[in-house]
Amino acid sequence: MNRKYNFAVILSGCGVYDGAEIHEAVLTLLAIDKAGSNYQCYAPDIKQHHVLNHYTGKEIMESRIVLEESARIARGKIKPLNEFNESLHDGIIFPGGFGVAKNLSSFAFEGANCEINKEVEQAVLKMVKAQKPIGALCIAPAVISKILKGAEVTIGKDEDTIKAIQGMGGIHQERGHGEICIDRKYKLVTTPCYMLDATISQIEEGATNVVQAMLSLMK
Amino acid sequence: MNRKYNFAVILSGCGVYDGAEIHEAVLTLLAIDKAGSNYQCYAPDIKQHHVLNHYTGKEIMESRIVLEESARIARGKIKPLNEFNESLHDGIIFPGGFGVAKNLSSFAFEGANCEINKEVEQAVLKMVKAQKPIGALCIAPAVISKILKGAEVTIGKDEDTIKAIQGMGGIHQERGHGEICIDRKYKLVTTPCYMLDATISQIEEGATNVVQAMLSLMK
Repeated sequence: MNRKYNFAVILSGCGVYDGAEIHEAVLTLLAIDKAGSNYQCYAPDIKQHHVLNHYTGKEIMESRIVLEESARIARGKIKPLNEFNESLHDGIIFPGGFGVAKNLSSFAFEGANCEINKEVEQAVLKMVKAQKPIGALCIAPAVISKILKGAEVTIGKDEDTIKAIQGMGGIHQERGHGEICIDRKYKLVTTPCYMLDATISQIEEGATNVVQAMLSLMK
Repeated sequence: MNRKYNFAVILSGCGVYDGAEIHEAVLTLLAIDKAGSNYQCYAPDIKQHHVLNHYTGKEIMESRIVLEESARIARGKIKPLNEFNESLHDGIIFPGGFGVAKNLSSFAFEGANCEINKEVEQAVLKMVKAQKPIGALCIAPAVISKILKGAEVTIGKDEDTIKAIQGMGGIHQERGHGEICIDRKYKLVTTPCYMLDATISQIEEGATNVVQAMLSLMK
């Protein structure tokens, strides 16, 4: 009988411009479920960097909490990231969205000089130590390349982001829609998703390919 | 060459407890795109009934706008529902979530005696007049049955909701995960989704079956 693998999915809010990219997050959960595996969502219990009106693009003078907004995507079934325990999971995945670059790190503002949320950094380092695979979509690979020195990742083709990755000591590999990049030393699987001008079907393809490659690395 | 069909997707916020159910909304968009069709999202430019913290389930004393929150799911590509024009669309779909019962109607509070948002009612009636199909997921079929007298719908098996549908003159048909109910006089296609204790893969199945049935009714 096949065992069920357990994925941790790390969210960064709810909405592409100030939180987790919703399509990438949902289609990651779908890919895990369709592969016959389980997922548990986590998010840090911190304030969002800011709140953007996604209709106008303008800032709203409000304060929202990353854990509470991420809970919308998780239908309430989410844990604070400080409860993350690597022994309970076979893999960890970061969907994209500006939340990864604004809430989980300061990458959106400081590029290669960014700081990383300590709970995020610890979760990634614990998985590497346990030799368990890490997945990252969209902009998330750039943030992971700050944590894992010399990591080989893809974020697609965006030149400024590629320079920032190289500035953090990362190695960038160009990839197209749905394609993945695998760094075998870190067991790190990445894909561009909406870093390219993608359709929602292409996001599903990317998320599915990341999950499948992670499952191969688990076996 | 196959023509591309154009779907209108009506959102009611962003989050199962006070807005559109995110998985149902995203997987509706995915099903439309995978069928080779186009989608345009709409939402009414009105205040949400209330805002719930999806981590604790408790109310937050804030005010949010249905159009702005729905724009998170649509990645900003959304129009106010008062711009809906039935001549531009071949079908209209309502994903579920409490937003349908709290923001698009008062069904969550008044059951069979509920009022319906006038823009929602007009959009549905215009599509019926144009003999174009309507899709509804989860709790949305109950709200549609208030607009379309004698409609045959499914919301799964929930007894209280079934009684309310019957109280509005609707006819309820029990359906399981992913299964659909088709009312041919109204060209109305419905499925239970998270009105049953479903997995995310079962939501994808329900959304896909609704979209496919609507496409058959368009031809």
